[in-house]
Amino acid sequence: MLDALFKPRSVAIIGASNNPLSIGYIVMQNLLDHDFKGPIYPINPKAKFIKSFRAYASIADIPDEVDLVNISIKNTIVPYVLEECGKKGVKFAIVHTAGFKEVGEEGLALEKQIVEVAHKYGMRIYGPNSQGIQNSDPEISVYANFTFVPMFPGNISIVAQSGGVGETLKLHLYNIGKGMRMYSSFGNESDVSMNEIIDYYGQDEETKAIMVHMETLKDPAGFLEVASRVTAKKPILALKTGKTSEGTKAVASHTGALVEQETLVDVIFKKSGVLRFDSQEDMIHAAVAFSNQPVPGGDRVVIVTNTGGPAIIAVDECISAGLKLAELSAKTKETLRKIVFQMAIVSNPVDVVATAGPEQYGGTVEALLKDPNIDSILLVFVTAPFADCEGIARKLGELGKVSKKPIVCQVMTIEKWAEVIRLIRESGIPVYDFAETAARALSAMTEYGKFTRRKAPAYKKYEVNKQKAETVIKRHRGKEKFLPQDDVFELLRCYGIPAVNTAKIMKEEELDKTAAEVGFPVVLKVDSDKIIHKTEAGGVSVNLKDGKALRVSFKKMAGKFAKYKPGFILQQYVESGKEVIMGVKGNEGMEPTIMFGLGGVFVEVLKDVQFRLAPLSREEALEMIRSIKGFPILEGARGEKAVDVNKLAEILIRFSQLASDFPELDEIDLNPVFAFEKGKGAAVVDARAKIIKR
Amino acid sequence: MLDALFKPRSVAIIGASNNPLSIGYIVMQNLLDHDFKGPIYPINPKAKFIKSFRAYASIADIPDEVDLVNISIKNTIVPYVLEECGKKGVKFAIVHTAGFKEVGEEGLALEKQIVEVAHKYGMRIYGPNSQGIQNSDPEISVYANFTFVPMFPGNISIVAQSGGVGETLKLHLYNIGKGMRMYSSFGNESDVSMNEIIDYYGQDEETKAIMVHMETLKDPAGFLEVASRVTAKKPILALKTGKTSEGTKAVASHTGALVEQETLVDVIFKKSGVLRFDSQEDMIHAAVAFSNQPVPGGDRVVIVTNTGGPAIIAVDECISAGLKLAELSAKTKETLRKIVFQMAIVSNPVDVVATAGPEQYGGTVEALLKDPNIDSILLVFVTAPFADCEGIARKLGELGKVSKKPIVCQVMTIEKWAEVIRLIRESGIPVYDFAETAARALSAMTEYGKFTRRKAPAYKKYEVNKQKAETVIKRHRGKEKFLPQDDVFELLRCYGIPAVNTAKIMKEEELDKTAAEVGFPVVLKVDSDKIIHKTEAGGVSVNLKDGKALRVSFKKMAGKFAKYKPGFILQQYVESGKEVIMGVKGNEGMEPTIMFGLGGVFVEVLKDVQFRLAPLSREEALEMIRSIKGFPILEGARGEKAVDVNKLAEILIRFSQLASDFPELDEIDLNPVFAFEKGKGAAVVDARAKIIKR
Repeated sequence: MLDALFKPRSVAIIGASNNPLSIGYIVMQNLLDHDFKGPIYPINPKAKFIKSFRAYASIADIPDEVDLVNISIKNTIVPYVLEECGKKGVKFAIVHTAGFKEVGEEGLALEKQIVEVAHKYGMRIYGPNSQGIQNSDPEISVYANFTFVPMFPGNISIVAQSGGVGETLKLHLYNIGKGMRMYSSFGNESDVSMNEIIDYYGQDEETKAIMVHMETLKDPAGFLEVASRVTAKKPILALKTGKTSEGTKAVASHTGALVEQETLVDVIFKKSGVLRFDSQEDMIHAAVAFSNQPVPGGDRVVIVTNTGGPAIIAVDECISAGLKLAELSAKTKETLRKIVFQMAIVSNPVDVVATAGPEQYGGTVEALLKDPNIDSILLVFVTAPFADCEGIARKLGELGKVSKKPIVCQVMTIEKWAEVIRLIRESGIPVYDFAETAARALSAMTEYGKFTRRKAPAYKKYEVNKQKAETVIKRHRGKEKFLPQDDVFELLRCYGIPAVNTAKIMKEEELDKTAAEVGFPVVLKVDSDKIIHKTEAGGVSVNLKDGKALRVSFKKMAGKFAKYKPGFILQQYVESGKEVIMGVKGNEGMEPTIMFGLGGVFVEVLKDVQFRLAPLSREEALEMIRSIKGFPILEGARGEKAVDVNKLAEILIRFSQLASDFPELDEIDLNPVFAFEKGKGAAVVDARAKIIKR
Repeated sequence: MLDALFKPRSVAIIGASNNPLSIGYIVMQNLLDHDFKGPIYPINPKAKFIKSFRAYASIADIPDEVDLVNISIKNTIVPYVLEECGKKGVKFAIVHTAGFKEVGEEGLALEKQIVEVAHKYGMRIYGPNSQGIQNSDPEISVYANFTFVPMFPGNISIVAQSGGVGETLKLHLYNIGKGMRMYSSFGNESDVSMNEIIDYYGQDEETKAIMVHMETLKDPAGFLEVASRVTAKKPILALKTGKTSEGTKAVASHTGALVEQETLVDVIFKKSGVLRFDSQEDMIHAAVAFSNQPVPGGDRVVIVTNTGGPAIIAVDECISAGLKLAELSAKTKETLRKIVFQMAIVSNPVDVVATAGPEQYGGTVEALLKDPNIDSILLVFVTAPFADCEGIARKLGELGKVSKKPIVCQVMTIEKWAEVIRLIRESGIPVYDFAETAARALSAMTEYGKFTRRKAPAYKKYEVNKQKAETVIKRHRGKEKFLPQDDVFELLRCYGIPAVNTAKIMKEEELDKTAAEVGFPVVLKVDSDKIIHKTEAGGVSVNLKDGKALRVSFKKMAGKFAKYKPGFILQQYVESGKEVIMGVKGNEGMEPTIMFGLGGVFVEVLKDVQFRLAPLSREEALEMIRSIKGFPILEGARGEKAVDVNKLAEILIRFSQLASDFPELDEIDLNPVFAFEKGKGAAVVDARAKIIKR
């Protein structure tokens, strides 16, 4: 519960000062400028007064209760004043001071120390190395932060890992005259965490949209849990920066390397319905739309314009963002034809032409709002000098206030028609400078609408032999190694994942008997955790038609790899299907990541793969399969037969069930899996699994 | 020469009126408000005075010369007043009036009529259905346009097919306090064309950057010629909208369908060095950077910041836009360490920290400007309340004024520090709200720099047998049909394009002799322009090892296709190479478009193809090959041998030479071409060519 942080009844400033360049001074000034609704207590052992406020030498001297302190004194003194704060019963300490974890070992020790001190007294630390918090709630109006963008009430809340990015977000809302609800840039996150703050915003009735900036995801499992809870009630818009760091650049052919931090963030966002943005600007524009507009009930947009060209841009952008142009109902068209001028185009976009007045433009929007074929409306509006533009704006404003469908608007105008923008904005319709922006904001809203409307995913569990799988895992648990291939195939069998007949042999003498069981033609493979790329090393012989051919290959391989003392795998040779690949990457403390893609060059050269977090619903599994660029190949491009997509989805779900049940399986690669034509299912041809201590 | 249009010595307004909602009134008011430097003559047969100006009943009554008239009278009267204008010696007529080509047949006839009338007198028509023109040159100051964005001098010129888009572009420049040079939205383009206007801007000394908006490219060949000439001197930034029209959506497997309007625009832009943008906003931001900053000499950028997070965003955006982070020289690092505070990070980004003053921030930029390893500088600057921000801005401004390297800047601030933005902008350094924007503007400048620095492409012509090819073409010239396959192979031979041995047979009796010439094993193919998809139709038999097998296949095929009376092709059977595809699509009145891609699913499912306009230089051919996503496959992914990329480039050039020499070849598909390992070249396996009347 962060109430005493975001709704403090009183604030003390440790490091308060009369030097206007000091953080203590600036925080105090910000609190005063924004008319904080509680007492402020400056603490300074030397000064008698700070800005006309009586100063206290120590927090202990304050006669009243203190909820929150802002600390901006030298780093090494922080633990001592925190002791005093603890004794005083302070609930939260915002530590602005830098020189902790971010400067190395010594700082880290100091950081641990301050958290220890605080927790001893049940006090919480916000920071250190942090900007602070703000809450524009008129009953509170707390600006316990040393930044400069003025605050006024609104319903978008911001949490930013980077203070600079947080400031940019605040600044842009301010520049377009848009208020803000709460703000937080939390610094080193030694105690109060980003996830707690998001959770708190989620519970705040007045917050309609949350903007998040992150550079790292400190507690991915916690974020997933909190975000999933919050997005059910309100949208989370997120910007994850630092995408080009070394760790995310290296993408190799194996699941382990493919699944990096970026992928993890992506699958967590997807699973929890967090909307990811690539730029600050797009995120802000979307947040503004969310803050006052209803979420669209579908993806069918209608564009209304009084000038041609920008509407075409809106179409381009809507279509490429995945929206659909609504088909106007016959009734709507009939109504419109009665309203608009003769030169107008009654289609989608609806072009009411530049001479349209309130009756034509407003009437058109009014009629469209009633059309059940339409989910959202994008307006393009140029203030033509020969039209009653204020009248149009007034009419749009009236409609905007009562509309149950979202409306976004591009307005092209200058100061002279400032009233036009004011009237439209006042109604809650966001006004943008560019059609592209309006379209992108609408597309984000549509995406969120789709997320909120989907049924709760059904995570069906297949009947599997988990007990038997456990006996396999047990033999290796606690080690860090690749499992022997026959154990991997045994695990697949336990989970009902079809694989080609496979058996292990150790000695030449077993060849005939085992081959008879597997059935000719066979494939012979060397099996040793020291040989990773078997094919390249000459450890695979395919389509051996009889015992003689098999023996020749066996002798050759046994000689070649003698030094590794390997085992061998004998496998049924099957005609090639379409090669797909499935993978698992374990995640510490949370469900594993599942990968699906086309095999061979598609994964290695084109990186055409999809990731999702386990567990997988049937819808998620099918969506994964359908989302790869090469999906037409599985559907039967170029006159070939389609593969059994439903069976592939089932295997993916069974595979994710196996991975969820045994989190110590850190990597599993099924590569290739042959997908056969409809009705003939699929079969794992090769598989690899790595176990680690977990 | 458009001087009398953009620099008129006098303007007459036909349709001038005292009704403030009329176009005639608004144009006149715009001319007055912007203090036009010549006489204005209102024409109105009824009024004696228009806005205190003596009105003339007819243009004939004006006692002086008239360069330009603005016409906003009823469409059907336009031809008659144009007669009068012609007789008067008017040079240009801006026709605002609508109701011409855009309303159908009748309008089109009227439009042709007005152009005829004008040309009879050597007069030119601008429009009809047009906004007008503007020129902010203080010596002229003409606002012959009915729009509302105020005009003041600058050095970016705009030409927009859509008036609404043009207005948006103007408006945004105005909103950020940036002037404009010339403006033009040309309507129906019945006479004065977009290409002429671009050419005119190109010759205007004061225009430093040109923004173009287009929906259709009326004269592609003309645009290519003009744009190539202009981009050698100054950048052309272009926005092509209407990307999602039906015509561009349908993408099929054959070159003919792949090469649509969008592709043509793209190859023309690439060939002529036009910078293409996807949004109005990105184009404007880049234009602002071009208008005052030098073009970077390379792609190595350094980022300087006084706050961490936004710099990370700048890195992400620079890298994904193809820029490289500069490696600071040892000397620069040494200098910086002496200048900056201890907490600062001397790396790239350089973080001078929020407490940095003019000495630290400004000194850093000064040192970086001297580093030969750096081509451009991106600044992130937050006005920290505890730093001398105006001092920093003053220093940056001084550096900006003399810098030979481009500097772009994100500034985070509010009104209180308006002077900071003023000081920086005054120096010519563009100031943006977001780091993303600054990075994208810089990347556009870098791309243009790369274009201007490249050597003039050498269009080597191979020695070919054009004469013999002419005899082949001659047989079909004037028809519209697919050429017989042996003729296609003959053309390839004439141009030195390697193909597998191929011969034509008509009767069973020729089988043995021809097979002996071609050499077993052979492929037998049916050959008829009525059978397009031969393989699917059962018209191809591969790897026929002897005469007996060949005869069996022949009998079967001859029976099957008897009704078409087909010929047959006998072809040497070669082991499969990597399949690539080359294509040609002819362009009316200009060089053809050349396509390259990987064959099979890569072209059909993934559309992984590249297009360029003929002729191809060696660099262009290699760039095409290297730009496909699947290029690693040709380079030898997964341990396979690389193919002969140089030979592929040579074939592409020879192929484009063939296509250029015979523009009547409207479509040629070489599909597949087998690319063999290095040293073994490549060979066309199948080819198809369509000739049309041209």
